[in-house]
Amino acid sequence: MKIPVLEVFGPTVQGEGMVAGQKTMFVRTGGCDYSCAWCDSAFTWDGSQKADALTPETIVAKLQEIGGDRFNHVTISGGNPALHKGIGELVQLLKAQDIGTAVETQGSFWQEWLREIDDVTISPKPPSSKMVTDWEKLDYFCEQLQSRPSGSQSLKVVIFNEGDLAYAKKVHARYPNMTFYLQVGNDDLEEGTPTRLRDHLLERYEWLVDTVMEDKELNNVRVLPQIHTLIWGNKQGV
Amino acid sequence: MKIPVLEVFGPTVQGEGMVAGQKTMFVRTGGCDYSCAWCDSAFTWDGSQKADALTPETIVAKLQEIGGDRFNHVTISGGNPALHKGIGELVQLLKAQDIGTAVETQGSFWQEWLREIDDVTISPKPPSSKMVTDWEKLDYFCEQLQSRPSGSQSLKVVIFNEGDLAYAKKVHARYPNMTFYLQVGNDDLEEGTPTRLRDHLLERYEWLVDTVMEDKELNNVRVLPQIHTLIWGNKQGV
Repeated sequence: MKIPVLEVFGPTVQGEGMVAGQKTMFVRTGGCDYSCAWCDSAFTWDGSQKADALTPETIVAKLQEIGGDRFNHVTISGGNPALHKGIGELVQLLKAQDIGTAVETQGSFWQEWLREIDDVTISPKPPSSKMVTDWEKLDYFCEQLQSRPSGSQSLKVVIFNEGDLAYAKKVHARYPNMTFYLQVGNDDLEEGTPTRLRDHLLERYEWLVDTVMEDKELNNVRVLPQIHTLIWGNKQGV
Repeated sequence: MKIPVLEVFGPTVQGEGMVAGQKTMFVRTGGCDYSCAWCDSAFTWDGSQKADALTPETIVAKLQEIGGDRFNHVTISGGNPALHKGIGELVQLLKAQDIGTAVETQGSFWQEWLREIDDVTISPKPPSSKMVTDWEKLDYFCEQLQSRPSGSQSLKVVIFNEGDLAYAKKVHARYPNMTFYLQVGNDDLEEGTPTRLRDHLLERYEWLVDTVMEDKELNNVRVLPQIHTLIWGNKQGV
């Protein structure tokens, strides 16, 4: 079963969340059931870039062609990769080669192959995205994973403003046993100079840290910047 | 049994390693069996600041006085906290209150209370530190923890140069099943302007990322900067 793919690149570092810093290859799938106002990968769903329909075997061949023997971890991102049933076959091929896997998805669609993913990041979208969370779908998604070891999945909410923080608290209170990440949002996708973007984002990160440190409803949480953005700014494919 | 304590502060974010981003309080103990050339907390062992000998109960009271109800995680750092047997009692007091714990130590001394710590970071020191690793002691230390879940401990090596990278590869090859972190070293402890230090350290981080990405002996690894230094520079107590 073919999968729409927009980018295959790496190895590079995972810049976000529960596997931040991990040396990994990226497979970015096309298509999304969401259209977040601030999406940093809008090219996966806004028609500006065309996806190739690739078989799982072709994707593995591409990973090997680009990454050679310099990787043993693959991150499947999007778009929303959980739209694609065919990824199950890709995951099996990677597992057979002892390659670790990570996925990030908003938790709006469930796929059985998610059980086979080493690190699942569930990233429900806060109000600033203009998306509306279907809590029943998110409950169902989280329930499917709850029998796995606690370090195998996490929630991550991107924060742009106070309204997003209120949403994050609601998510954390609803799933108190899930490792919980707060990530500072990138609100300047047009800035072309990495050092200028970096200063701005670290200012926003400091605001988020200060705010969370004062809030007793957000104790067992982790607050992180997007590491790749601090180095490479808004550049695609790194 | 009293513990020599130099700082109690927080809540703040853990800036390094396996619990990077975690909201946590810090207890910094005095005394170290090492004297790393580039130690960023040399005041814990060089005599420039005086430790208070505190009972575990007093330390918990201090944590509550400073952190109030805004924390449920405590990081015990140093110096080398594993020099102090009395920390076992502190850990019991924290556990009784359902407070998570993390420790960082170079792995040169073992203490039974380390089994009770949620997140143990073992940070053997590379050649640039001018310290010499006792591999038998490090083997013993790692063996003690190997029956715990794999996400409960990790190795972390700070990298300043190519010699340190060669050392890191040796450590990773010796303990291949241990989650492995590479951290870019701060080689400018005198820089007083955080933004200048930030630009320099992110340049060093980019060098480290680029180097590791090309190296097939360093595949299953994570590469991170010191996040707190990117915001607060060389300031103590944050």
